[in-house]
Amino acid sequence: MYIEVYPTAQSFEDAENKIVIVIDVLRATSVITTALYNGAEKLIPVVSVEEAFELKEKLHKNAILGGERNALKPEGFDMGNSPLEYSKNRVYGKTVVLTTSNGTLAIKSCQKAKYILIGCFLNVTAVAREAVNLSRALGENADIVLLCAGTLGKFSLDDFCCAGAICDYLCKNHRDSKLSDLATAAKLLYQNKADNIHSLISMAKHYKVLKELGFEKDLDYCLQQDIFDIVPFYDKAISAVRLLKS
Amino acid sequence: MYIEVYPTAQSFEDAENKIVIVIDVLRATSVITTALYNGAEKLIPVVSVEEAFELKEKLHKNAILGGERNALKPEGFDMGNSPLEYSKNRVYGKTVVLTTSNGTLAIKSCQKAKYILIGCFLNVTAVAREAVNLSRALGENADIVLLCAGTLGKFSLDDFCCAGAICDYLCKNHRDSKLSDLATAAKLLYQNKADNIHSLISMAKHYKVLKELGFEKDLDYCLQQDIFDIVPFYDKAISAVRLLKS
Repeated sequence: MYIEVYPTAQSFEDAENKIVIVIDVLRATSVITTALYNGAEKLIPVVSVEEAFELKEKLHKNAILGGERNALKPEGFDMGNSPLEYSKNRVYGKTVVLTTSNGTLAIKSCQKAKYILIGCFLNVTAVAREAVNLSRALGENADIVLLCAGTLGKFSLDDFCCAGAICDYLCKNHRDSKLSDLATAAKLLYQNKADNIHSLISMAKHYKVLKELGFEKDLDYCLQQDIFDIVPFYDKAISAVRLLKS
Repeated sequence: MYIEVYPTAQSFEDAENKIVIVIDVLRATSVITTALYNGAEKLIPVVSVEEAFELKEKLHKNAILGGERNALKPEGFDMGNSPLEYSKNRVYGKTVVLTTSNGTLAIKSCQKAKYILIGCFLNVTAVAREAVNLSRALGENADIVLLCAGTLGKFSLDDFCCAGAICDYLCKNHRDSKLSDLATAAKLLYQNKADNIHSLISMAKHYKVLKELGFEKDLDYCLQQDIFDIVPFYDKAISAVRLLKS
Protein backbone atom coordinates (compact mmCIF):
# COMPACT_ATOMS: atom_id res chain seq x y z
CA MET A 1 0.00 0.00 0.00
CA TYR A 2 1.78 3.11 -1.25
CA ILE A 3 1.07 6.46 0.43
CA GLU A 4 1.90 9.76 -1.21
CA VAL A 5 1.54 13.33 0.01
CA TYR A 6 1.05 16.27 -2.34
CA PRO A 7 2.02 19.64 -0.86
CA THR A 8 -0.64 21.67 -2.72
CA ALA A 9 -3.67 20.94 -4.85
CA GLN A 10 -1.89 22.66 -7.75
CA SER A 11 0.97 20.18 -7.65
CA PHE A 12 -1.32 17.19 -7.96
CA GLU A 13 -1.63 15.08 -11.08
CA ASP A 14 -2.68 11.59 -11.90
CA ALA A 15 -5.50 10.88 -9.44
CA GLU A 16 -6.68 8.02 -11.62
CA ASN A 17 -7.58 4.85 -9.71
CA LYS A 18 -6.25 6.29 -6.48
CA ILE A 19 -7.90 6.92 -3.13
CA VAL A 20 -7.50 10.60 -2.36
CA ILE A 21 -7.95 12.17 1.05
CA VAL A 22 -8.43 15.94 0.67
CA ILE A 23 -7.09 17.87 3.68
CA ASP A 24 -7.83 21.53 4.40
CA VAL A 25 -7.60 21.74 8.19
CA LEU A 26 -8.02 25.54 8.35
CA ARG A 27 -10.89 25.29 7.61
CA ALA A 28 -12.84 23.79 4.69
CA THR A 29 -12.54 20.09 5.50
CA SER A 30 -13.17 20.83 9.20
CA VAL A 31 -16.36 22.65 8.12
CA ILE A 32 -17.49 19.75 5.91
CA THR A 33 -16.87 17.16 8.63
CA THR A 34 -18.66 19.24 11.27
CA ALA A 35 -21.67 20.02 9.04
CA LEU A 36 -22.20 16.36 8.18
CA TYR A 37 -21.78 15.33 11.82
CA ASN A 38 -24.49 17.85 12.68
CA GLY A 39 -26.88 16.34 10.19
CA ALA A 40 -26.42 18.32 6.98
CA GLU A 41 -27.66 16.12 4.14
CA LYS A 42 -24.83 17.04 1.80
CA LEU A 43 -22.41 19.78 0.82
CA ILE A 44 -21.97 20.81 -2.80
CA PRO A 45 -18.51 22.28 -3.41
CA VAL A 46 -18.44 24.97 -6.12
CA VAL A 47 -15.54 27.03 -7.32
CA SER A 48 -16.96 30.56 -7.59
CA VAL A 49 -19.22 32.78 -5.50
CA GLU A 50 -21.42 33.40 -8.57
CA GLU A 51 -21.87 29.69 -9.10
CA ALA A 52 -22.85 29.34 -5.44
CA PHE A 53 -25.62 31.95 -5.77
CA GLU A 54 -26.92 30.37 -9.00
CA LEU A 55 -27.02 26.93 -7.43
CA LYS A 56 -28.85 28.15 -4.34
CA GLU A 57 -31.42 29.78 -6.62
CA LYS A 58 -31.99 26.44 -8.36
CA LEU A 59 -32.16 24.39 -5.16
CA HIS A 60 -34.54 26.75 -3.38
CA LYS A 61 -35.50 26.58 0.25
CA ASN A 62 -33.52 23.64 1.50
CA ALA A 63 -30.14 25.02 0.53
CA ILE A 64 -27.88 27.36 2.46
CA LEU A 65 -24.79 29.17 1.28
CA GLY A 66 -21.47 28.85 3.07
CA GLY A 67 -17.82 29.63 2.50
CA GLU A 68 -15.26 32.39 2.37
CA ARG A 69 -13.11 34.71 0.36
CA ASN A 70 -9.99 36.02 2.11
CA ALA A 71 -11.16 34.01 5.15
CA LEU A 72 -14.36 36.09 5.48
CA LYS A 73 -18.02 35.39 4.65
CA PRO A 74 -18.95 36.69 1.19
CA GLU A 75 -21.79 39.23 1.22
CA GLY A 76 -25.18 37.59 0.94
CA PHE A 77 -23.99 34.20 2.24
CA ASP A 78 -25.76 32.47 5.12
CA MET A 79 -22.56 31.27 6.74
CA GLY A 80 -18.83 31.87 6.60
CA ASN A 81 -16.09 29.27 6.86
CA SER A 82 -16.11 28.78 10.62
CA PRO A 83 -17.00 25.19 11.56
CA LEU A 84 -18.62 26.56 14.74
CA GLU A 85 -21.34 28.14 12.60
CA TYR A 86 -22.38 24.77 11.20
CA SER A 87 -24.43 23.75 14.25
CA LYS A 88 -27.28 21.22 14.25
CA ASN A 89 -29.76 24.09 14.48
CA ARG A 90 -28.59 25.60 11.27
CA VAL A 91 -27.62 22.65 9.06
CA TYR A 92 -29.75 19.63 10.00
CA GLY A 93 -31.37 18.20 6.87
CA LYS A 94 -29.97 20.99 4.71
CA THR A 95 -27.89 21.09 1.56
CA VAL A 96 -24.91 23.39 1.96
CA VAL A 97 -23.52 25.04 -1.15
CA LEU A 98 -19.89 25.62 -0.21
CA THR A 99 -17.21 27.71 -1.88
CA THR A 100 -13.80 28.31 -0.31
CA SER A 101 -10.48 29.51 -1.70
CA ASN A 102 -8.58 26.25 -1.32
CA GLY A 103 -10.56 23.28 -0.06
CA THR A 104 -13.30 23.20 -2.67
CA LEU A 105 -10.69 23.73 -5.39
CA ALA A 106 -8.74 20.76 -4.06
CA ILE A 107 -11.85 18.55 -4.21
CA LYS A 108 -12.43 19.65 -7.81
CA SER A 109 -8.80 18.89 -8.73
CA CYS A 110 -9.05 15.15 -8.07
CA GLN A 111 -12.25 14.22 -9.85
CA LYS A 112 -10.56 11.30 -11.61
CA ALA A 113 -9.79 9.54 -8.33
CA LYS A 114 -11.44 6.23 -7.52
CA TYR A 115 -12.60 7.61 -4.18
CA ILE A 116 -12.37 11.11 -2.72
CA LEU A 117 -12.49 11.24 1.08
CA ILE A 118 -12.45 14.33 3.28
CA GLY A 119 -10.01 14.48 6.18
CA CYS A 120 -9.02 16.81 8.98
CA PHE A 121 -7.82 16.43 12.56
CA LEU A 122 -11.42 16.05 13.75
CA ASN A 123 -11.76 12.68 11.97
CA VAL A 124 -8.14 11.75 11.31
CA THR A 125 -8.30 8.14 12.47
CA ALA A 126 -11.70 7.45 10.90
CA VAL A 127 -10.62 8.73 7.49
CA ALA A 128 -7.29 6.88 7.60
CA ARG A 129 -9.03 3.62 8.52
CA GLU A 130 -11.58 4.03 5.76
CA ALA A 131 -8.87 4.73 3.17
CA VAL A 132 -7.26 1.40 4.08
CA ASN A 133 -10.62 -0.42 3.81
CA LEU A 134 -11.20 1.01 0.36
CA SER A 135 -7.64 0.23 -0.73
CA ARG A 136 -8.03 -3.40 0.37
CA ALA A 137 -11.47 -3.63 -1.26
CA LEU A 138 -10.05 -2.53 -4.59
CA GLY A 139 -8.06 -5.74 -4.59
CA GLU A 140 -4.82 -4.37 -5.87
CA ASN A 141 -4.11 -2.31 -2.72
CA ALA A 142 -4.66 0.99 -4.47
CA ASP A 143 -2.39 3.92 -3.71
CA ILE A 144 -3.53 6.40 -1.09
CA VAL A 145 -2.90 10.07 -1.84
CA LEU A 146 -3.02 12.70 0.89
CA LEU A 147 -3.82 15.92 -0.93
CA CYS A 148 -2.96 19.01 1.10
CA ALA A 149 -5.17 21.84 -0.14
CA GLY A 150 -2.65 24.51 0.83
CA THR A 151 -3.39 28.22 0.98
CA LEU A 152 -3.71 30.14 -2.29
CA GLY A 153 -1.41 27.72 -4.06
CA LYS A 154 1.17 27.63 -1.27
CA PHE A 155 2.10 24.76 1.02
CA SER A 156 0.39 25.04 4.39
CA LEU A 157 1.91 23.55 7.55
CA ASP A 158 -1.47 22.64 9.11
CA ASP A 159 -2.52 20.39 6.23
CA PHE A 160 0.94 18.79 6.10
CA CYS A 161 0.85 18.01 9.82
CA CYS A 162 -2.58 16.37 9.43
CA ALA A 163 -1.20 14.32 6.52
CA GLY A 164 1.59 13.30 8.89
CA ALA A 165 -0.96 12.16 11.48
CA ILE A 166 -2.63 9.97 8.85
CA CYS A 167 0.75 8.50 7.82
CA ASP A 168 1.54 7.85 11.46
CA TYR A 169 -1.71 5.91 11.89
CA LEU A 170 -1.18 3.94 8.67
CA CYS A 171 2.38 2.93 9.52
CA LYS A 172 1.49 1.91 13.07
CA ASN A 173 -1.47 -0.20 11.97
CA HIS A 174 -0.52 -1.54 8.55
CA ARG A 175 2.90 -3.01 8.03
CA ASP A 176 2.61 -2.94 4.27
CA SER A 177 2.43 0.89 4.27
CA LYS A 178 5.13 2.32 2.02
CA LEU A 179 5.63 6.06 2.26
CA SER A 180 6.88 8.48 -0.38
CA ASP A 181 9.66 10.80 0.80
CA LEU A 182 7.21 13.64 1.40
CA ALA A 183 4.92 11.31 3.35
CA THR A 184 7.93 10.29 5.47
CA ALA A 185 8.75 13.94 6.15
CA ALA A 186 5.12 14.63 7.15
CA LYS A 187 5.04 11.60 9.45
CA LEU A 188 8.29 12.56 11.20
CA LEU A 189 7.17 16.14 11.64
CA TYR A 190 3.90 15.00 13.20
CA GLN A 191 5.52 12.36 15.41
CA ASN A 192 7.98 14.87 16.85
CA LYS A 193 5.13 17.15 17.95
CA ALA A 194 2.23 14.71 18.38
CA ASP A 195 1.83 15.75 22.02
CA ASN A 196 1.32 19.38 21.06
CA ILE A 197 0.24 19.91 17.48
CA HIS A 198 -1.18 23.29 18.43
CA SER A 199 2.32 24.66 19.12
CA LEU A 200 3.52 23.24 15.80
CA ILE A 201 0.66 24.60 13.74
CA SER A 202 0.83 28.00 15.41
CA MET A 203 3.93 28.50 13.22
CA ALA A 204 1.79 28.26 10.08
CA LYS A 205 1.22 31.45 8.16
CA HIS A 206 -2.50 30.77 7.74
CA TYR A 207 -2.86 30.11 11.47
CA LYS A 208 -1.49 33.59 12.13
CA VAL A 209 -3.82 35.14 9.56
CA LEU A 210 -6.88 33.53 11.15
CA LYS A 211 -5.73 34.48 14.64
CA GLU A 212 -5.34 38.11 13.60
CA LEU A 213 -8.84 38.05 12.14
CA GLY A 214 -10.22 36.90 15.50
CA PHE A 215 -10.87 33.24 14.65
CA GLU A 216 -9.08 31.86 17.74
CA LYS A 217 -11.98 29.61 18.68
CA ASP A 218 -11.88 28.06 15.22
CA LEU A 219 -8.19 27.28 15.66
CA ASP A 220 -8.78 25.56 19.00
CA TYR A 221 -11.69 23.66 17.49
CA CYS A 222 -10.01 22.51 14.26
CA LEU A 223 -6.91 21.19 16.02
CA GLN A 224 -8.83 18.70 18.17
CA GLN A 225 -8.00 15.17 17.17
CA ASP A 226 -10.51 12.37 16.61
CA ILE A 227 -13.63 13.94 18.05
CA PHE A 228 -15.74 12.50 15.21
CA ASP A 229 -15.79 8.93 13.96
CA ILE A 230 -17.26 9.80 10.55
CA VAL A 231 -15.97 9.89 6.99
CA PRO A 232 -17.27 12.42 4.47
CA PHE A 233 -16.79 11.41 0.86
CA TYR A 234 -17.40 13.07 -2.47
CA ASP A 235 -20.12 11.20 -4.31
CA LYS A 236 -19.65 11.83 -8.01
CA ALA A 237 -23.20 10.66 -8.78
CA ILE A 238 -24.62 13.69 -6.97
CA SER A 239 -21.56 16.02 -7.25
CA ALA A 240 -21.68 16.48 -3.51
CA VAL A 241 -20.00 15.43 -0.28
CA ARG A 242 -22.08 13.20 1.97
CA LEU A 243 -21.44 10.77 4.78
CA LEU A 244 -20.03 7.40 3.91
CA LYS A 245 -22.32 4.79 5.42
CA SER A 246 -20.40 1.74 6.50
CA MET B 1 14.71 38.35 4.81
CA TYR B 2 12.16 35.86 3.54
CA ILE B 3 13.21 32.24 3.02
CA GLU B 4 11.25 29.84 0.85
CA VAL B 5 11.75 26.16 0.07
CA TYR B 6 10.57 24.57 -3.17
CA PRO B 7 10.10 20.80 -2.96
CA THR B 8 11.14 20.08 -6.58
CA ALA B 9 12.69 22.00 -9.44
CA GLN B 10 9.47 21.44 -11.38
CA SER B 11 7.41 23.27 -8.79
CA PHE B 12 9.56 26.38 -8.97
CA GLU B 13 8.48 29.62 -10.57
CA ASP B 14 9.38 33.25 -10.27
CA ALA B 15 13.13 33.21 -9.59
CA GLU B 16 13.36 36.82 -10.62
CA ASN B 17 15.49 38.99 -8.35
CA LYS B 18 15.87 36.18 -5.84
CA ILE B 19 18.91 34.41 -4.47
CA VAL B 20 18.51 30.73 -5.23
CA ILE B 21 20.47 27.94 -3.57
CA VAL B 22 20.20 24.78 -5.67
CA ILE B 23 20.38 21.62 -3.56
CA ASP B 24 20.93 18.10 -4.92
CA VAL B 25 22.66 16.31 -2.07
CA LEU B 26 22.65 12.88 -3.76
CA ARG B 27 24.72 13.76 -5.69
CA ALA B 28 25.04 16.57 -8.25
CA THR B 29 25.68 19.52 -5.94
CA SER B 30 28.02 17.40 -3.81
CA VAL B 31 29.94 16.60 -7.03
CA ILE B 32 30.12 20.27 -8.04
CA THR B 33 31.32 21.39 -4.62
CA THR B 34 33.95 18.64 -4.46
CA ALA B 35 35.23 19.24 -7.99
CA LEU B 36 35.70 22.96 -7.37
CA TYR B 37 37.37 22.31 -4.02
CA ASN B 38 39.77 20.01 -5.83
CA GLY B 39 40.69 22.72 -8.31
CA ALA B 40 38.40 22.22 -11.27
CA GLU B 41 38.26 25.53 -13.13
CA LYS B 42 34.54 25.34 -13.79
CA LEU B 43 31.63 22.99 -14.41
CA ILE B 44 29.27 23.53 -17.32
CA PRO B 45 25.85 22.03 -16.62
CA VAL B 46 24.05 20.74 -19.70
CA VAL B 47 20.69 19.03 -19.98
CA SER B 48 21.34 16.13 -22.38
CA VAL B 49 24.05 13.53 -22.92
CA GLU B 50 24.23 14.53 -26.60
CA GLU B 51 24.81 18.16 -25.68
CA ALA B 52 27.57 17.05 -23.31
CA PHE B 53 29.41 15.19 -26.09
CA GLU B 54 29.05 18.12 -28.51
CA LEU B 55 30.39 20.58 -25.95
CA LYS B 56 33.37 18.40 -25.10
CA GLU B 57 34.17 18.21 -28.81
CA LYS B 58 34.18 22.01 -29.01
CA LEU B 59 36.22 22.54 -25.85
CA HIS B 60 38.85 19.95 -26.77
CA LYS B 61 41.55 18.70 -24.46
CA ASN B 62 40.91 20.58 -21.28
CA ALA B 63 37.37 19.33 -20.83
CA ILE B 64 36.16 16.16 -19.20
CA LEU B 65 32.70 14.63 -19.24
CA GLY B 66 30.86 13.77 -16.04
CA GLY B 67 27.38 12.86 -14.92
CA GLU B 68 24.80 10.10 -14.82
CA ARG B 69 21.66 8.60 -16.21
CA ASN B 70 19.77 6.32 -13.82
CA ALA B 71 22.58 6.98 -11.32
CA LEU B 72 25.19 5.37 -13.60
CA LYS B 73 27.95 6.79 -15.81
CA PRO B 74 26.79 7.18 -19.43
CA GLU B 75 28.88 5.24 -21.94
CA GLY B 76 31.83 7.25 -23.21
CA PHE B 77 31.90 9.61 -20.22
CA ASP B 78 35.11 10.19 -18.25
CA MET B 79 33.40 10.19 -14.90
CA GLY B 80 30.10 9.25 -13.29
CA ASN B 81 28.23 11.14 -10.60
CA SER B 82 30.24 10.00 -7.61
CA PRO B 83 31.94 12.94 -5.86
CA LEU B 84 34.78 10.59 -4.89
CA GLU B 85 35.79 10.39 -8.57
CA TYR B 86 36.36 14.14 -8.72
CA SER B 87 39.81 14.05 -7.10
CA LYS B 88 42.53 16.68 -7.52
CA ASN B 89 44.40 14.29 -9.83
CA ARG B 90 41.55 14.13 -12.24
CA VAL B 91 39.96 17.59 -12.17
CA TYR B 92 42.62 20.17 -11.29
CA GLY B 93 42.54 22.97 -13.89
CA LYS B 94 39.89 21.20 -15.93
CA THR B 95 36.49 22.18 -17.25
CA VAL B 96 33.89 19.57 -16.36
CA VAL B 97 30.90 19.22 -18.68
CA LEU B 98 28.24 17.85 -16.32
CA THR B 99 24.85 16.34 -17.05
CA THR B 100 22.69 14.74 -14.38
CA SER B 101 19.02 13.82 -14.20
CA ASN B 102 18.01 16.36 -11.57
CA GLY B 103 20.72 18.76 -10.40
CA THR B 104 21.70 20.24 -13.74
CA LEU B 105 18.01 20.58 -14.64
CA ALA B 106 17.42 22.46 -11.38
CA ILE B 107 20.24 24.89 -12.19
CA LYS B 108 18.75 25.49 -15.63
CA SER B 109 15.28 26.11 -14.12
CA CYS B 110 16.30 29.23 -12.19
CA GLN B 111 18.20 31.21 -14.78
CA LYS B 112 16.21 34.37 -13.99
CA ALA B 113 17.49 34.47 -10.42
CA LYS B 114 19.73 37.32 -9.29
CA TYR B 115 22.25 34.81 -7.98
CA ILE B 116 22.39 31.02 -8.23
CA LEU B 117 24.43 29.33 -5.51
CA ILE B 118 25.16 25.63 -5.13
CA GLY B 119 24.57 23.99 -1.78
CA CYS B 120 24.88 20.59 -0.14
CA PHE B 121 25.77 19.28 3.31
CA LEU B 122 29.49 19.57 2.50
CA ASN B 123 29.29 23.39 2.39
CA VAL B 124 25.99 24.06 4.16
CA THR B 125 27.17 26.85 6.46
CA ALA B 126 29.32 28.55 3.82
CA VAL B 127 26.49 28.68 1.30
CA ALA B 128 23.95 29.89 3.88
CA ARG B 129 26.30 32.65 5.04
CA GLU B 130 26.98 33.76 1.47
CA ALA B 131 23.26 33.88 0.65
CA VAL B 132 22.79 36.29 3.55
CA ASN B 133 25.71 38.46 2.38
CA LEU B 134 24.24 38.69 -1.09
CA SER B 135 20.76 39.39 0.26
CA ARG B 136 22.12 42.24 2.39
CA ALA B 137 24.22 43.57 -0.48
CA LEU B 138 21.15 43.79 -2.71
CA GLY B 139 19.87 46.44 -0.33
CA GLU B 140 16.28 45.33 -0.19
CA ASN B 141 17.06 42.08 1.67
CA ALA B 142 16.22 39.91 -1.31
CA ASP B 143 14.32 36.67 -0.78
CA ILE B 144 16.34 33.48 -0.46
CA VAL B 145 14.95 30.42 -2.24
CA LEU B 146 16.13 26.92 -1.36
CA LEU B 147 15.47 24.89 -4.47
CA CYS B 148 15.41 21.15 -3.82
CA ALA B 149 16.29 19.40 -7.07
CA GLY B 150 14.32 16.28 -6.17
CA THR B 151 14.56 12.98 -8.00
CA LEU B 152 12.91 12.67 -11.38
CA GLY B 153 10.35 15.31 -10.51
CA LYS B 154 9.61 13.89 -7.07
CA PHE B 155 10.37 15.40 -3.68
CA SER B 156 13.53 13.95 -2.15
CA LEU B 157 14.07 13.79 1.61
CA ASP B 158 17.83 14.35 1.41
CA ASP B 159 17.52 17.72 -0.34
CA PHE B 160 14.74 18.79 2.01
CA CYS B 161 16.82 17.93 5.08
CA CYS B 162 19.73 20.00 3.70
CA ALA B 163 17.31 22.90 3.11
CA GLY B 164 16.31 22.46 6.75
CA ALA B 165 19.94 22.72 7.84
CA ILE B 166 20.27 26.01 5.93
CA CYS B 167 17.06 27.34 7.53
CA ASP B 168 18.35 26.31 10.92
CA TYR B 169 21.57 28.27 10.37
CA LEU B 170 19.70 31.32 9.06
CA CYS B 171 17.25 31.44 11.97
CA LYS B 172 19.96 30.98 14.58
CA ASN B 173 22.16 33.71 13.11
CA HIS B 174 19.76 36.23 11.61
CA ARG B 175 16.77 37.34 13.60
CA ASP B 176 15.05 38.89 10.61
CA SER B 177 14.75 35.46 8.92
CA LYS B 178 11.12 34.78 8.05
CA LEU B 179 10.34 31.26 6.92
CA SER B 180 7.63 30.04 4.58
CA ASP B 181 5.59 27.12 5.93
CA LEU B 182 7.62 24.60 3.91
CA ALA B 183 10.86 26.18 5.16
CA THR B 184 9.54 25.83 8.72
CA ALA B 185 8.74 22.16 8.12
CA ALA B 186 12.25 21.57 6.72
CA LYS B 187 13.87 23.34 9.65
CA LEU B 188 11.92 21.35 12.24
CA LEU B 189 12.66 18.08 10.49
CA TYR B 190 16.37 18.85 10.43
CA GLN B 191 16.47 20.10 14.03
CA ASN B 192 14.81 16.95 15.32
CA LYS B 193 17.50 14.79 13.72
CA ALA B 194 20.48 17.14 13.57
CA ASP B 195 22.57 14.75 15.64
CA ASN B 196 22.06 11.94 13.15
CA ILE B 197 21.06 13.10 9.70
CA HIS B 198 22.32 9.82 8.24
CA SER B 199 19.55 7.88 10.00
CA LEU B 200 17.00 10.40 8.74
CA ILE B 201 18.18 10.39 5.15
CA SER B 202 18.48 6.61 5.05
CA MET B 203 14.66 6.70 4.82
CA ALA B 204 14.88 8.51 1.45
CA LYS B 205 13.97 6.50 -1.60
CA HIS B 206 16.99 7.75 -3.55
CA TYR B 207 19.31 6.82 -0.67
CA LYS B 208 18.05 3.25 -0.93
CA VAL B 209 18.50 3.20 -4.71
CA LEU B 210 22.12 4.37 -4.42
CA LYS B 211 22.82 1.91 -1.62
CA GLU B 212 21.51 -0.97 -3.71
CA LEU B 213 23.72 0.13 -6.60
CA GLY B 214 26.77 -0.07 -4.30
CA PHE B 215 27.34 3.66 -3.74
CA GLU B 216 27.58 3.39 0.05
CA LYS B 217 30.81 5.39 0.19
CA ASP B 218 29.13 8.22 -1.68
CA LEU B 219 26.34 8.27 0.87
CA ASP B 220 28.79 8.50 3.78
CA TYR B 221 30.70 11.20 1.96
CA CYS B 222 27.75 13.37 0.89
CA LEU B 223 26.20 13.44 4.37
CA GLN B 224 29.25 15.01 6.01
CA GLN B 225 28.48 18.50 7.19
CA ASP B 226 30.66 21.58 6.63
CA ILE B 227 33.85 19.94 5.44
CA PHE B 228 34.34 22.69 2.82
CA ASP B 229 34.19 26.43 3.36
CA ILE B 230 33.56 27.26 -0.30
CA VAL B 231 30.61 28.51 -2.33
CA PRO B 232 30.09 27.45 -5.94
CA PHE B 233 27.93 29.80 -7.95
CA TYR B 234 26.53 29.78 -11.46
CA ASP B 235 28.12 32.57 -13.46
CA LYS B 236 25.71 33.50 -16.24
CA ALA B 237 28.45 35.30 -18.16
CA ILE B 238 30.23 32.00 -18.81
CA SER B 239 27.20 29.65 -18.42
CA ALA B 240 29.19 27.68 -15.87
CA VAL B 241 29.57 27.06 -12.16
CA ARG B 242 32.78 28.39 -10.64
CA LEU B 243 33.99 29.32 -7.18
CA LEU B 244 32.77 32.55 -5.68
CA LYS B 245 35.82 34.54 -4.64
CA SER B 246 35.13 36.59 -1.56
